[in-house]
This record gives sequence, structure tokens and C-alpha cells, in this order.
Amino acid sequence: MAKKTFDQKHLDTLITFLRIPSISTQEKHFSDVIKAVEFLEGLLKEVGFITIARKYAKDCENMPPIIFAERIDNPDNPTILVYNHYDVQPADPINEWKKPPFEPVIENENIYGRGTTDDKGQLITHLAALSELSEEWGDTWPINIKIIYEGQEESGGENLHRWLQEKETQEVLKADVAVISDTGFRTNNTPAIIYGLRGVVYFQIDAQLADHDLHSGVFGGSVLNPINALVHMLNKLYDAETGLVTIPEFYDDVVVLDEEEKEILAKIPFDEIQHRKDAGNSHALHGEKGYSHKERLCARPTLDMNGIWGGFMEEGAKTIIPKSAHAKFSCRLVPNQQAERIVTIIQNYLERIAPKQVKVSVSHIHSGHGVLVDRKSVWMQAAVSALQETFGTEPVFDREGGSIPAVADFKTYLGLDTLLFGYSLPDDNLHAPNEKFSLKQFALGIECNKRFYRNIAQISK
Amino acid sequence: MAKKTFDQKHLDTLITFLRIPSISTQEKHFSDVIKAVEFLEGLLKEVGFITIARKYAKDCENMPPIIFAERIDNPDNPTILVYNHYDVQPADPINEWKKPPFEPVIENENIYGRGTTDDKGQLITHLAALSELSEEWGDTWPINIKIIYEGQEESGGENLHRWLQEKETQEVLKADVAVISDTGFRTNNTPAIIYGLRGVVYFQIDAQLADHDLHSGVFGGSVLNPINALVHMLNKLYDAETGLVTIPEFYDDVVVLDEEEKEILAKIPFDEIQHRKDAGNSHALHGEKGYSHKERLCARPTLDMNGIWGGFMEEGAKTIIPKSAHAKFSCRLVPNQQAERIVTIIQNYLERIAPKQVKVSVSHIHSGHGVLVDRKSVWMQAAVSALQETFGTEPVFDREGGSIPAVADFKTYLGLDTLLFGYSLPDDNLHAPNEKFSLKQFALGIECNKRFYRNIAQISK
Repeated sequence: MAKKTFDQKHLDTLITFLRIPSISTQEKHFSDVIKAVEFLEGLLKEVGFITIARKYAKDCENMPPIIFAERIDNPDNPTILVYNHYDVQPADPINEWKKPPFEPVIENENIYGRGTTDDKGQLITHLAALSELSEEWGDTWPINIKIIYEGQEESGGENLHRWLQEKETQEVLKADVAVISDTGFRTNNTPAIIYGLRGVVYFQIDAQLADHDLHSGVFGGSVLNPINALVHMLNKLYDAETGLVTIPEFYDDVVVLDEEEKEILAKIPFDEIQHRKDAGNSHALHGEKGYSHKERLCARPTLDMNGIWGGFMEEGAKTIIPKSAHAKFSCRLVPNQQAERIVTIIQNYLERIAPKQVKVSVSHIHSGHGVLVDRKSVWMQAAVSALQETFGTEPVFDREGGSIPAVADFKTYLGLDTLLFGYSLPDDNLHAPNEKFSLKQFALGIECNKRFYRNIAQISK
Repeated sequence: MAKKTFDQKHLDTLITFLRIPSISTQEKHFSDVIKAVEFLEGLLKEVGFITIARKYAKDCENMPPIIFAERIDNPDNPTILVYNHYDVQPADPINEWKKPPFEPVIENENIYGRGTTDDKGQLITHLAALSELSEEWGDTWPINIKIIYEGQEESGGENLHRWLQEKETQEVLKADVAVISDTGFRTNNTPAIIYGLRGVVYFQIDAQLADHDLHSGVFGGSVLNPINALVHMLNKLYDAETGLVTIPEFYDDVVVLDEEEKEILAKIPFDEIQHRKDAGNSHALHGEKGYSHKERLCARPTLDMNGIWGGFMEEGAKTIIPKSAHAKFSCRLVPNQQAERIVTIIQNYLERIAPKQVKVSVSHIHSGHGVLVDRKSVWMQAAVSALQETFGTEPVFDREGGSIPAVADFKTYLGLDTLLFGYSLPDDNLHAPNEKFSLKQFALGIECNKRFYRNIAQISK
């Protein structure tokens, strides 16, 4: 494995950054969010970026800004769009932290503090790499870099999501490929590149019977109970026995996993006992027949009811027929399932199966496309060889079951594939107390990013 | 129609009684509840009852007492158990009352105030009748009367329900038949006798997957969502298309309606437009094929989900797999369906259909038997002819879809049939603001009860 003398300067930069509690979900930290912006603008200037600007979508001017920076020395060179985020999760529950979350400390070769691994530490690995490369490259960089640092990744990302939809933005962000370091290793020694993400469609169903609750003794038998009606509809969406979605046409566009991909996914370490534990000590695992857990989690679509409510929800008994019943459900989609088509299929189906004796309305709440990135592109090879050379082991390709909105939006609005690799370790306590980042990962991350950018510079477009 | 000079003394008694806000659901009115007890004890003594006592089930000594009164002049004579309740509903919403709810006023031949029709006015019709008969009968009453006045009818009735289960109570309350006046007419001119009530079984199902909510991106596809599982189970209980309960054996003991009863029920005025309006302007009526609305409402069993909850219930979207999901459901039972048997059938069935990948628990919350009273008994004839003679029209026999716990308990614990007839009119605003009782119904009710008791005195056992 490659060794690297650690550069104290980059660590000091990170520590200063970590001391700013840039929590985007809490209004009272808005001034800290702006402090983080000012801090990064200074760094970007130091590293050698020419254009540095704060960006807002229309009507998002009161939100944390997107920091945009750019250096284009020769438009014919490869252009990379680098994304990180500068906001962090809240520190709650604060009393479970061994050290104050915004006073970073170094212990056992780790740096502890909120944002160390998600995503400030990883952001600095890129900026530090570019800083070092800038010295190496001198006045003319052999690649063009566009940077966007988001300030709302932990709080909905509305500003970025809307900004990416604007025509002007799409001009400004033209690039060959995007890179995001906001993920991590599969084990302490297994670097990973995420090449697939699931999409999502999210719905709410409301079934209304009456304008007030009814007495089940007085009306039971002569009206259709809206919970009974809702259950009837929801049951036609999913078969709990087979684990299959039962909406006609739902699977039409799902790509069958080929042998190569099955092998790739089989290589990902998957510890069933640990998975059950992570799943809140789930009673039992369960899924679609004919697929491994890993395949079910990332390469097969799902339908999950996210919430349901109606009627009497307290202790004891109340013999009512509720006036209404409600449910939220969502499907995780796999690449090639078009979210828009699935939305239409689901809406039409629900309309068809809705009992006429209650008033049913279906609201589509949001959608996001699934993403599948070419594992064999020259850009991907630049990442693969950087990881392999730096960490001495071939990275695994992996797919994840969730969505990363920026990745889907880059594809949808900018037409860009994203190279998704990062340096977190499985025990880094992401979103939890005592978040940490390994100093070794920090140092090697900088090294790996340098290799990655150098590799990119070798690509002739 | 029989005419009767109104007796001011009984009306004054009622007004005094109505001024006591004996609201059993509100702790702050407990002293008023006791005032009502003292008031009634005085009246009972005046009327000529010998034994007058406050009764409590074991461990219910802090609850509103049951007033028990008895006069047995000859054990060989017919013995009637008379039930009424002295507690009233709260007056909320108070600002919708035209006059203060506990300051009764007479307007347009009605007396307005909380409790006028439910049930203080009706209670007084019996006590006034007995008071007048007592003068007529002199020292020896030709029938034996046992009275119980409940003080918790509007607040769960726990004291009575438990007291009736005690062996000693069952000795004390030995009688030939019970009479309850807590119901009313079908139209302003149609007296009714309720001869059938539905029973009920009430359950809660809890489906637990994990000890915390899971991210649907990270876990979706590899665990059984507890709402999905619950929907799967609930859907096997009821068919929303046919309106039938789909639990095997559920209908085994349901008695098929014979032609005579179908005719009886067809005679009950049923206004579908009004019913829809009363049902909170329900979107549409719906029920089991092959039965009229009236039959569905009183002579067929049902399964209604009373409440359901789990996961994310707020505005917007949260892509979780909830840790658990919960539902309450209940069945209205018809006479001859044994509640205990139905409980067992449902518990066994749910156990059989519960998916094994979540932890399912089923709690039986409460049960009550259905009731069907012989329409042709001598006791029933005593009521029928009293109503017919007093109101000049034959009473209709009716069945109701709800339960009256006292009626079921009298049958279950005392082996007693109940004669259920009363003097409320359809527009008396029961449980609502501006509750009223017609002065004509009050006067004729007293008259009718006198006829009823005299008829009973003619029955040789």
C-alpha cells in the first residue's frame, strides 16, 4: 500500500472548517452556514480558481447558497464537475458525544467531530489535491475544473435541485463527467465505486367517506369504511407472500441482471446477521424469490408503504367508521424504469381499482430517476486505477438501494454521469454522535484524488 | 289518541333534576353526580320504595354509584327490573346552545336542557307513573319493582358491567323481565320497541418489524414492511367488493331472516337520502348484496376497521420503512353469533394468515353479545298494548345496529330479556346542543308506563 507523509497544513484547514457548525436544518445556524461559505471562498481563491460565485435558483435567494467555482485554462481539455457539500447534520443527541461535536479532536489516528466524514473531510481531500496539483501544474492546468459545493444536502437540497433545472445553469455546468466523494469503503480495506442508484416515486392516497366519523353500530354495513377501502386498494399494489409489486406493467422496463453484474454484486461483502442488526434487529429478512439480498437491495424495484393513518389511534376502543383514511407509499425504481412512466402506470391503475363508494384522490409527491453509470468508460477507469494504486487493492463496483438526488439531477438536467467514490469507513458514525474520519483515509484520499485528476489529464477527448 | 291533563308536579320534579349537571365524564362534576343520587334517593323514598341503596362493584367504590331500589310486596307477583341512567353527556359545544344547558326552559311545548330526553325525562316518566300507581294501589303493590339507576352510562358503564357479574348481584336482581326507556319513536307518531341489538367484538393488531424506522433506500426489498404485512392481513378479513366478511366460519351461526321479520323490518321508515346525510354526507351507500339497507344495518354482521396507523403521517415525504404498524377493527355481531366463538375464530385465523417475517400480536379488547327478544312473550304484549292504547297507533318492532351494554349484560348475567321502548322523538338532539323532550311525550310517557305496569299486574306467572 502506498505510504504518504501527512501534510499538517491540510489537517489544519479541515479543523478550521469543522469548527463552523454549518447545520443547514437549523435556522439559528444560518450565519454559520454563511461563515462556511466565506471560508470555502477563501480556500478556492487560494487554490487558484478564477471564477467564484454564490448561486441561487429563482426564489431560493434566502437559502444556503451553492458555491460555484471554475478554472478553465483550455476549453479543449477534459472538464470535471466536482461536487461536495459544506452543510452538516445537527449534532443531536448532543449528550452522546464523547467530545464536543464542533471542537474537533484527534485520537487513535482519527479526527472526531460533526462533518469529519460527511462531507467536510472528503471535500478537503479534493481541494487539497487540487492545491498540490496546482503547484505541480503551474500556470496552466491540464484539466478544467468546475466545482459546486451545496449547502442544503442535509435539508432537502431545494436550491440545487431547482438551480440545475435552469437553462443558464446547464450552460454554466457543461462538463465531461462529475465526481462526488460523499460515500465510502465497503470494509476498512475495500474501496468502492457506486455505479448504480435506485430512483423513487412517492405517492399519497386519500380515501374520504364522510365529513365526520360515524358510529359503527348505526352505520356499519351500509357504507364502505374508508380504511377497508384503502386496504383493498393497497393490497392490490404488493403481494406480501412473493414480495412482488403487483401493478401491471410495473416490471416492463426492469433490466435483467446479466451474469457479469450478478458476479460483481456477489463480490460485495454482505453480512446477513449485521444487516438484520442494522435493520433495527428486524424480525426476519424477506424479499423477492430468486434474488440475493444484495440484488434485492439495489437491483430490484420495491413498493413500501411509508405511512398510514385514519380513525381511532389511541388506547382502548372506539367503535367508529372513520371519515377518511390515508396512506403514503413509494417505489424504489431501478435504472431503465422511467419515473414518469411509472407515475402514470400507478395513477391509472389506482384510478381503475378505486372503489366508487368512497372519494379517492391520489397525489404524486415526488420522483427521482435511477442511475446506472458505465463501468467501462475512460472516466471510470481514471477512478479505478487511482483507487487501486493508492489503496493497493482493486475497488469493488457497487450499487446502492437509495437515491442521491444530485447524481440523478446531474444525469437528468446536465446529461452527466457521476463517478461516485469516497473515503468514509463503515464505522465512521455518519449522521450519528462521535462522527469521525480516519487520518489515513484523509491523507490517502488526497493522494488518490491527485492520481485521479492526473489520470483525467491523460484522457484525450 | 288518549288525552291527559299535564301534572305540574312531575314537570317541577324533572326541572329540579335537570338543574343538576351530573356529567359523569368530567371529574369536576363528581359532586353533581352525587347530588343527582341524593335527589333520586329522596324521590324513590317518596314513591314508596323500601330498600334504597348505593351499589358498587368490587374496586369501583370511587365511581358514580348504581342506585338500587326495591319494593316486593308479594314474591309470587311479577317482578320488573326498571333501568334508567341519571348521568348526562357534557354540554359541549356550549356556545351552540340557545339557552344555558342546565337551566331548563319550556318553549313550544318542549322542555330544553341537557338530559331532558337522555335520560332524565324518561327516568321521571317511570318514577311519576309508579308514584301515581302507588296512590292507586295503596299499601300493597300488585307487582314487584326493582330499580337500577346507572351513573356511568355516558362514560363506559364499568361499575354496572362489573357489578352485574357478581354472584350476589345476580341474586339481588332476580326478576321476570327488564324494562329500559332510553330510546324513542321512529317518527313523531310512530312508537317503537327495539327487540334486537347487534353484539360486538373488538380487536387490535400490531405488526412489528424492527426497533426503529428504516431507510427505504437502504433496506427496501430485504425486509417485509409492517404496513405492507398489515394490509395483507386486513385484506383477508373483508371483501370491499362484495361487502362480505371473508373470515372462514364467521357466518356459521347467523340466523337467516324469515319472511315475517323481513316484513317487520321493511315497515320501519327508512329514508335513504336522510341516512346518507346523517352518515356525514357519505359519498355513497354500500353493503352486502341481497339485503336492504335496514337489514344490513341491524340483521347482518359487519367488519369495520376503526383505526389504523404507522410510519410517516405528516405532510410531504419521508422514505421510511416504519418499525411497526397497527390497526383496530371490530365486528358487529347478530343474535346467535356467540361473541366468544367469533373471538376464537378470528384469533385463530389471524394467527394462520400472519406473515412470519414480522412479529404480529392480536389483542382482543372487548366483546358484547347480540340480543334478540321474543316479540310474542306476555311481557312484550304488556308493552305493545300500553303503547298502542296511549298513542293510538301500533308500535313498530325494530332492530338496531349498535349495542346497548346493559341490555346485553342483563341477558348474559341475569338471564333477563329487556323491553326496550321510550319516548324520544327523532329531532330531540340527543348528545347534541339544544337537547329537548316533548312535553306531550313526557305526559303520555307517564300514562303509557302506568298502562304498562297495570298490564304487567294482570300477568299470572
